[in-house]
Order: sequence, then structure tokens, then C-alpha cells
Amino acid sequence: MKAVLDHIAVVLVRPQIPENIGAAARAMNNMGLRRLVLVEPKNCDLCRVLKTATGSTIDLIERMEVFDDLKEALAPYHHLVGTTARTGALRPTMSQPRTLARDLISISQNNRVAILFGPEDRGLSNDQLRHCNTIITIPTAGFSSLNLAQAVIIVCYEIFLAARDAPAEVQPRLANSFELEGMYEHLKDVLLKIGFIDPQNPEHWILNIRRFLSRLPLRAREVRIIRGVCRQIDWYASQVEAVQKSKR
Amino acid sequence: MKAVLDHIAVVLVRPQIPENIGAAARAMNNMGLRRLVLVEPKNCDLCRVLKTATGSTIDLIERMEVFDDLKEALAPYHHLVGTTARTGALRPTMSQPRTLARDLISISQNNRVAILFGPEDRGLSNDQLRHCNTIITIPTAGFSSLNLAQAVIIVCYEIFLAARDAPAEVQPRLANSFELEGMYEHLKDVLLKIGFIDPQNPEHWILNIRRFLSRLPLRAREVRIIRGVCRQIDWYASQVEAVQKSKR
Repeated sequence: MKAVLDHIAVVLVRPQIPENIGAAARAMNNMGLRRLVLVEPKNCDLCRVLKTATGSTIDLIERMEVFDDLKEALAPYHHLVGTTARTGALRPTMSQPRTLARDLISISQNNRVAILFGPEDRGLSNDQLRHCNTIITIPTAGFSSLNLAQAVIIVCYEIFLAARDAPAEVQPRLANSFELEGMYEHLKDVLLKIGFIDPQNPEHWILNIRRFLSRLPLRAREVRIIRGVCRQIDWYASQVEAVQKSKR
Repeated sequence: MKAVLDHIAVVLVRPQIPENIGAAARAMNNMGLRRLVLVEPKNCDLCRVLKTATGSTIDLIERMEVFDDLKEALAPYHHLVGTTARTGALRPTMSQPRTLARDLISISQNNRVAILFGPEDRGLSNDQLRHCNTIITIPTAGFSSLNLAQAVIIVCYEIFLAARDAPAEVQPRLANSFELEGMYEHLKDVLLKIGFIDPQNPEHWILNIRRFLSRLPLRAREVRIIRGVCRQIDWYASQVEAVQKSKR
């Protein structure tokens, strides 16, 4: 169980209030999660953080990582989970903490998982959510705006229970964020080259592909296959170009 | 679902920190619970309470009840749930939030349920826990001391999910706290009279009986039966006394 929990990090994106960072850390500590990552904290006053991070939570705060850049923070992770209170356009890909927790038990055996929580006032942006493999919403009755640390404890609580109760089955290594982003860049280049996507608005087309591919947690091996196909298309496209040039 | 949630109250016993009261209220509001009861709050500065009770939670704070006496606060409730981080002597009767939530769905159809949370620094006393029908502990990994509002949201979250998902079966009306305490007093008097319990230490014996009887949520009808038996024993004991007197 410890190994599973050790592979899961809580990433607070632009947290605004230091007491919430401390309370989130305490919640993680209660539930056996130990990796806390902050990205662009607005205020990280340690006195205020430690006011709410009581007991043995101090160790967790001492080892917490702080980044200026989200992409850099997420590079080592293979599976990204986004949390949001907003539904709507993203609804189809949305899950809930209990289902997520069960899925993570096997994924996290061999993969590093990051669970992202957005800023207190507005949550994660649509753009940030788009990069996630899974998006979850904590079920609520009407008033859906949860305090940041409250959201953290519910997700961590579900993960702790799932880890404690579930028999684990091992999953192969998933592609990490660095490998995935490289793949999407490669796909965009190639699909532009062959005229599959509109050069006026390539991000729109790539978004559809992202949505499709992120419905499954992609394995490292699968990313290599997709990039192999990209290289092949690239080679074929150059052949076509060469022929066209020779005809002129 | 609404009826079920409306019958469940969160009772904060001697809360110390006003921000925790507000955060607990917000957590309840997130999960559709609307009845907040405070007993002997150390500090109930509304400015500080409202700092953490955002959004529509103000309504809930406006309707919150405040009592000086726990017994008085609990009188209208039929089923009492105590929360504790401490295990040990009370372990045999202990449950967890998920199991509790499932049980409460049917109980709360026809009964008022109070869930008690103790003060931040020391939790509910053994004596307070003894009066509860069910005692729950939130599962944690090692560091078991949860922030008060964090404990509240986990319990409310489980109740909300259970209410949302479970098909309800109706339970008959349970005895309320007033009826139960009357019964225990009656039992003590009668058992003292017939020499079943040691007059030097009647509370010790009554505790064993409490433990036994509180393993099941007693129905109002069952309490009437027990008191009927008590009355009968009482009557019989008086007969014996009368005979003994006449012999002297």
C-alpha cells in the first residue's frame, strides 16, 4: 500500500492562501500521501503554512517541491488527474473520486501520478484540464464550491481507502507528461504537413485528438508506436514533396 | 433524498476556533446537510465564523442552534453518533463513515440523527461517547488527528453519496435521547433496588448495560417494553419488601 501512495503527488496550482497549503498538507498526512508540489504559489509564508500543518506534517512541508512552471512541475509524471467543480463542456470525460481512486491503485504501481488542484478563486483553467488524462468532480449537493483543503482530503481519503482495501493488479509503465507532449507536438507537425489540420487554427484540431487519446491512459510503448507512425507519415510526405518538385 | 439529509444534524461540542465552525458549515452546505448545532462554543465570533462560511452557507449559519448544555441539545434526537480518533477500550462498538452512512439512510427516514464532533484539542470524552448509539472513526494512515472541519466533510460526503445512491427502506421510529436516558435511570433505580448492581459504584454496572443496549438502535416501542419490565420488577420488589417487613 505504501508504494502506491508514494507514487501519487498532490499538485496545488497557484494556491492563494498559505493556511490552505498547510491544511492540504495535513489532510495528505492523515491519508498517507507524502508528495506535495506547489506551482506558482501566490503566498508561501511558511509561518502561516505551518499554523495549519500540525503534528508530523512538518516533515511533509520540508520536502515539498515548489515550481514556477506547471509544465516543468509535471514532466516526471505519467498520469495527470485534474479536479474541477465546473461541469459542462468537459462533462463527458469526467469521473468521481471513488472511481478514480480504484483506477489509480493499479496505475500507480508503476507510474507516477499527479493530482492537480486549481487556485481557490477560479480552479484549474480549461487549458490546464485539457492536459489531464482524467478529470474528476467531487459530488456535491448544489453548492459545489469546496474549500481547497476540503477537496484535497476527500480525494486523498478515497485513495487511502482504495489502497487499503483493493487487491492490486499491476499496469505497465504509462507515458509521462514529457513523452506525451512530445507526441502531441510531433502529431501536430505531421498532420499540418499532410494537410489534415487547418494551419489557421491547428490547436482546435489537436484538441480533438487530445480528447480522444487521453480517454485512455497511454502506455509508454503506445506513445512510441504513435511516434513511429508519425515518422513514417513524415517520410512519406517528403517523398511526395520530392516527386512534386521533380515534376515542376 | 432531501428528507433524509434534513433529519441529520451536525453537533459541534465545545468547538474552540470560530473559523472551524464556518468551515464545517460550508462543508455541510456542500454536502446538502443543513442543521448545525453548537454546544458550549468557546468562541463564536460571527465575523470569524463567516470568514470561512462562504456563499450560501450564511443561511445555514443564521439558522444554527446554540446550547449551553449537551443533554438539552440532544434531547430531540433519536439516534446519536459519536466521532473519535481514539480507539482502544471503545473499539468493539466502532464503525466507519461509509458503513455509518449506509445505516443512517434508513434510520433517518423516521428519526432525527445527531452526529457529534468533539473539541479540536481533545475530541469527545469517553463519557460523551458512551451516550452514543454508534461510534465512528475516520480511517487514517498513522497521523489520525484530523482538522475538525475536515472530519465533518468526510462524514457529510459519505452521507451525501449514500443518500444519493441508496434505495431507502424505512425503519420504525427509534427512541430519542430523552426516552433512552429515562430508561437508563429507571433501570439503575430498579437494579439497585433488587441488589443487582453495587451501590458503591452503580455507574460501572450501568455502563455495561449501556454498552449492551446501545449496540442496536433501540426503537421507541422497545424502550416502552423495557420500562414496563422495570415497573414490574419495581412492583415485585415492593411486594417482597412488604412481606419482609410483616415478618419482622
